[in-house]
Amino acid sequence: MEKDVSIGLLGLGVVGSGVIQIVEEHQEELVHQLGCGVKVDKVLVRDMEKARQIEINHDLLTTNSDDVLANADIDVVVEVMGGVDTARKYILEALKAKKHVITANKDLIALHGPELEKVAQENGCDLFYEASVGGGIPLLRGLSDGLVSDRIQQVMGIVNGTTNYILTKMDKEGQSYEDALQKAQELGFAEADPTADVEGLDAARKMVILARLSFFTNVELDDVDVVGISNVSATDIDYGKKLDLTMKLIGFASRQDNQIDVSVEPTFISKTHPLAAVNNEYNAVYVSGENVGETMFYGAGAGSLPTATAVMSDVVEALKNMLLGVNGKQFVVPRFKKELTPADKRFSQFYLRLKVKDETGAFASISDLFNQLGISFERILQTPSNGDFAEVIVVTHQASSENFVKAMKQLDQLDVVESVESHYRVEGDA
Amino acid sequence: MEKDVSIGLLGLGVVGSGVIQIVEEHQEELVHQLGCGVKVDKVLVRDMEKARQIEINHDLLTTNSDDVLANADIDVVVEVMGGVDTARKYILEALKAKKHVITANKDLIALHGPELEKVAQENGCDLFYEASVGGGIPLLRGLSDGLVSDRIQQVMGIVNGTTNYILTKMDKEGQSYEDALQKAQELGFAEADPTADVEGLDAARKMVILARLSFFTNVELDDVDVVGISNVSATDIDYGKKLDLTMKLIGFASRQDNQIDVSVEPTFISKTHPLAAVNNEYNAVYVSGENVGETMFYGAGAGSLPTATAVMSDVVEALKNMLLGVNGKQFVVPRFKKELTPADKRFSQFYLRLKVKDETGAFASISDLFNQLGISFERILQTPSNGDFAEVIVVTHQASSENFVKAMKQLDQLDVVESVESHYRVEGDA
Repeated sequence: MEKDVSIGLLGLGVVGSGVIQIVEEHQEELVHQLGCGVKVDKVLVRDMEKARQIEINHDLLTTNSDDVLANADIDVVVEVMGGVDTARKYILEALKAKKHVITANKDLIALHGPELEKVAQENGCDLFYEASVGGGIPLLRGLSDGLVSDRIQQVMGIVNGTTNYILTKMDKEGQSYEDALQKAQELGFAEADPTADVEGLDAARKMVILARLSFFTNVELDDVDVVGISNVSATDIDYGKKLDLTMKLIGFASRQDNQIDVSVEPTFISKTHPLAAVNNEYNAVYVSGENVGETMFYGAGAGSLPTATAVMSDVVEALKNMLLGVNGKQFVVPRFKKELTPADKRFSQFYLRLKVKDETGAFASISDLFNQLGISFERILQTPSNGDFAEVIVVTHQASSENFVKAMKQLDQLDVVESVESHYRVEGDA
Repeated sequence: MEKDVSIGLLGLGVVGSGVIQIVEEHQEELVHQLGCGVKVDKVLVRDMEKARQIEINHDLLTTNSDDVLANADIDVVVEVMGGVDTARKYILEALKAKKHVITANKDLIALHGPELEKVAQENGCDLFYEASVGGGIPLLRGLSDGLVSDRIQQVMGIVNGTTNYILTKMDKEGQSYEDALQKAQELGFAEADPTADVEGLDAARKMVILARLSFFTNVELDDVDVVGISNVSATDIDYGKKLDLTMKLIGFASRQDNQIDVSVEPTFISKTHPLAAVNNEYNAVYVSGENVGETMFYGAGAGSLPTATAVMSDVVEALKNMLLGVNGKQFVVPRFKKELTPADKRFSQFYLRLKVKDETGAFASISDLFNQLGISFERILQTPSNGDFAEVIVVTHQASSENFVKAMKQLDQLDVVESVESHYRVEGDA
């Protein structure tokens, strides 16, 4: 039996509290896995006197970061404080002091992952961040180890629980976006300022991490096309139902040839697709690999204990490596030059809702326009005219983004089209 | 750049061919992961002249097992020949010759896993079998590493693609069991003798492996209660639809306190549960952990390339360990004495279909009987009588297996009950 190993925590919010709880309650499992115990040695907090969700020995708390980062007893630093600049500074200090680092911080990894991985490797340290995407779902290691000899072609992810909760309420209970958002805020699934969630930024950060891991290239946040859900209307969700489509905020990361394409956008998913059944605050990531075919990972994308479970799986991995003397293998080693897929090579189906003048030949001129761009229709819904206008909903066959954008522009010029009400990507159509 | 490592194959069927294909086509990925190449050195076959699905250098083939097992150049032996006795003998030989062993053989691991793990450890060798459950889904390592500091409470798995295909056809297309089975045989999803699949034996073997891994105890095949799908009728599937229930062959492995319970049986799953959306030949395993909550792993449960992907993830793991000099860590280290949950502590909801005489008070005496056993009803469906008999379908609230079995026996004695037509476990009810 070896001497206990020590971990230091930066932050004691929901995830930090979960880590403390797991270390206490699962000491026996940890001893079984590692052959030694694990203890929390120091916890950096901002306010010593703040009331905590868990009972913790007051002597473990400190407001001085050196008590963790320059503490010779501490082997692994767990960063669960959030934020970017200070977290980055502390993690760099920890790595340079030869401490292994585990973080749940998706913002930080999305922005500075490559830099931190490089410093980790230079110092022979592990830097793991399983909890940064998909909360407790064993996802990043599943992708990097489980599919190690495969080539991932596409990742489609519901990676933000707040927006999935809102869209589920809109779909299942016919709520408006505003009501569903308010309900999510009441339940603590959405923050007082929900911008990062509902505008797709949180999902975009996670897709950056997934895309790097899947395609071995340094994807950055600027490479991601992002559309949020704040303009999604109950009207479109209703039409979607009639077409057996369910609205989800989907993060895409695709590779074809050696070009990649990463985006986040509200998307109509065919009801028969497994992602359509992922409801409420749950997350899921649907992976298409050249050999493995289709695989999906599903689970709680957030929450104290699920996220802390992922953090602890990283801690155990780093400690195992430490006991074996084999740290410093990077999660992501970039090896391809990044090249983005141009719009004429990005294909999908599209949903489109138009307000059309009630004139003879109106639909003919619309379908003519699409025809000239080589876009054909899979399904058409036309609502009865109110005397002046009718609504026309079409679902196209596969079309390039470039041609679809052209069609949108030309439709705006068309006299019979009063307005393009909405358009969405469509996926998973059988 | 180190010297190439060599693997030897026992068997060259669908999975073996997939391994050869991946090694050839993904050499670059393997070099990237390992810092050296991987080559297939020898392949044991039964018949040198048999036509193969893939092109392979004839010099690699042999009918002499010593060319693999006693070959000093070979570091890792991949067993994909199937069967139990010969496979066991070869694997024991390989381990004693200090070769790491990867196998996709669920029958062998279910029957002899603990013995083989012990011999592997005694010889400082890796023995991995990710492909034995869930084909290409990164499942076993997800459970053992991803949830390392969690306590798994329940595993519910759709782990047999053949039966899931048959049940999907019955549910979605109203086919009879016989027609769906024939269709599955035509498509190659079911074998000419489908017994092992349709009677639940294949699923039981996989549940043994999952239960050992989840609960750290030596579960054996005899511990599993097994009911197959050959008696599932279109009638019950139809009633299920009316009750928003979908029939699936579910493998259960549950732990409460330190008692465990493992079974395989046709089960009605609530349509809102993620497992209800797992269709056709797909597999999925739904895991409930004390901390992580609910997680699901989904993907192709069989097939040449998906299964070979899982085999190759094990090969890479063993080779990494070898290059680092850290082999011999067991997948499953049993540490609890096995104790089975008695029937009075096994709870679930139940579906029950009765043929009942068309008499006043018939339903009253049935509900009286259940009432006396403390079993209450959640839902009741009664069909119009044909003059003599009516069908009564009930879904109970949670009840113990013991009490439900008692109820079945007493119903048989009840004068108003012509017959108990069918009964099934019900899960996932919200």
